[in-house]
Amino acid sequence: MMPGGDQEAYQYLKPILEAIAAKSGNTPCVAYMGNNAAGHYVKMVHNGIEYAMMQMISEVYDILHRAGGMENKDLHQLFLQWNEGELHSFLIEITAEVFKTGDAETSNPNDFLVDKILDQAGSKGTGKWTSQEAMDLPVSIPTIDMAVAMRDLSVYKDQRIKAAALFKPVIGNITLDEAFLTKLEEALAFCFTIAYAQGLSMLAKASEQWEMNIPLPSVIQVWKAGCIIRSALLGNFTDAYSKEPRLANLLLDKEIAVLLKNREESIRYIIGQAVQAKIPVAGMSSALAYYDAFLSERLPVNLIQAQRDFFGAHTYQRIDKEGVFHTEWQQEE
Amino acid sequence: MMPGGDQEAYQYLKPILEAIAAKSGNTPCVAYMGNNAAGHYVKMVHNGIEYAMMQMISEVYDILHRAGGMENKDLHQLFLQWNEGELHSFLIEITAEVFKTGDAETSNPNDFLVDKILDQAGSKGTGKWTSQEAMDLPVSIPTIDMAVAMRDLSVYKDQRIKAAALFKPVIGNITLDEAFLTKLEEALAFCFTIAYAQGLSMLAKASEQWEMNIPLPSVIQVWKAGCIIRSALLGNFTDAYSKEPRLANLLLDKEIAVLLKNREESIRYIIGQAVQAKIPVAGMSSALAYYDAFLSERLPVNLIQAQRDFFGAHTYQRIDKEGVFHTEWQQEE
Repeated sequence: MMPGGDQEAYQYLKPILEAIAAKSGNTPCVAYMGNNAAGHYVKMVHNGIEYAMMQMISEVYDILHRAGGMENKDLHQLFLQWNEGELHSFLIEITAEVFKTGDAETSNPNDFLVDKILDQAGSKGTGKWTSQEAMDLPVSIPTIDMAVAMRDLSVYKDQRIKAAALFKPVIGNITLDEAFLTKLEEALAFCFTIAYAQGLSMLAKASEQWEMNIPLPSVIQVWKAGCIIRSALLGNFTDAYSKEPRLANLLLDKEIAVLLKNREESIRYIIGQAVQAKIPVAGMSSALAYYDAFLSERLPVNLIQAQRDFFGAHTYQRIDKEGVFHTEWQQEE
Repeated sequence: MMPGGDQEAYQYLKPILEAIAAKSGNTPCVAYMGNNAAGHYVKMVHNGIEYAMMQMISEVYDILHRAGGMENKDLHQLFLQWNEGELHSFLIEITAEVFKTGDAETSNPNDFLVDKILDQAGSKGTGKWTSQEAMDLPVSIPTIDMAVAMRDLSVYKDQRIKAAALFKPVIGNITLDEAFLTKLEEALAFCFTIAYAQGLSMLAKASEQWEMNIPLPSVIQVWKAGCIIRSALLGNFTDAYSKEPRLANLLLDKEIAVLLKNREESIRYIIGQAVQAKIPVAGMSSALAYYDAFLSERLPVNLIQAQRDFFGAHTYQRIDKEGVFHTEWQQEE
């Protein structure tokens, strides 16, 4: 670190980085991210969001392929088409490309590489760090947690093979008509937005907690300009963070609320279909549960507090007066 | 620690503990749990499972109360009844008691304490440690992760109030007929079993990883004999771990497979209903997704590996030959 700290160091780099951006004709994809290693922190959370988006794309692929029977050529076309709409993003774009890539190891032109890849996820740990750090803050990022948990489950392939032989699950058939595909597209847009909301709420909380003073509008701008989670959806967030640079949660913005409400029916429908077809949708389910819980003025957590006070005298607070209370709950009549 | 280690220390305590158990006429609720602080580790995972069970009981309460309109007196009766069946457990028992406890702070006999308790969860951190440690092992315990994330979300009550005012969600009505209540009971038994399975799979993995040599049959016996997660369901697991003391996952046992398959339709139905009614069911959804993923010989994780190799050259493995591969994916034609 330079003598004057991160801010001073950045002053040296800024003109160079801006010149590069100007030369390429793009919005700069670099900016000062705050104090106390905020740049690394923002990159960590970026990767957490990336995990969540990739998990949910894989769930959509599972619905389309395992339940819907869609082949790689059609998957390629569908993702190309989605990349022209509101899902326009780097990850949707490369997913389209993945589905058209042949297998160079065989001479069969109908062999696609994606089908030959082992279904065990690797990771460099950045998604895990995001989840672990979120639990310490604490802030709730269940969709990133699910992406980590599902990658971890995938590694136990030998056990999955045994379980499949024991249970013999029969995957349901889903008819992929236009109405269904539109709902699926909207559901994924809903889920991506929730994943961004979770990550950004983590940055808002961490910025305060670790005194990083992270400029959230710059985060949005940099992510939009160039990174793995860049997407058209981020464009919708610019206004929200311009109006309120320290917005605690994206869901508290009126326009984002409209965007989500308009796609709410689709995500409920898709989850219902996937659950019936036996397609695991841990990521998308967690995104909807986060939304439904965040919109609940009253959650059933009063019961959890009652239970904790019952068995452990952990105390509780009341809705009608200040203070910390404990009750000698009667276990028997 | 005593010179001979945990094992030697336990030899001194064993006769005393067994005498206590004998005097009370119960199965001993103590046993040697293994090397390297295994006792603490088993207690930590116990608490993780406890978080998951409490989260899912709260979701069931939310379905019954917010969507079904069930009042405390009927909730008390229902949980009493459930405690006589396969859900028989300490947590169901105390939940029944919670619903009949009046509010000593008011003079109104129709006021129940549970309704006066603030819906913000506290925690001592043991669930969080379980999730964080599971991610390091790694082992997948998504339902415990969701319990932690939902407690953390509950704390942001000021934001939830604002979101509720902005979105004005309308909770759906669910008719609580006998058929629905039976399905709900079966769904919760399914979910409890999955929560145990996740925790026990973590102990199996950690025992190996940290050379703790945890005797899983003793864990089951001790948990059954006396602790917060004691339940009739644990009785079903004794056989599984007697046959195979190092069973990697409870779901790999034939009898447990039958138990789960028989309740599978109910959990799918309940999640479908809750999702439509806007009741957040993060815990129960994660339990079903874990089940569906664990039973999948082929998960869509091949796509995640393709994406990772595409944008980061993170390499992948193939299903048809050994080795680690990288492809120069074509981003454009």
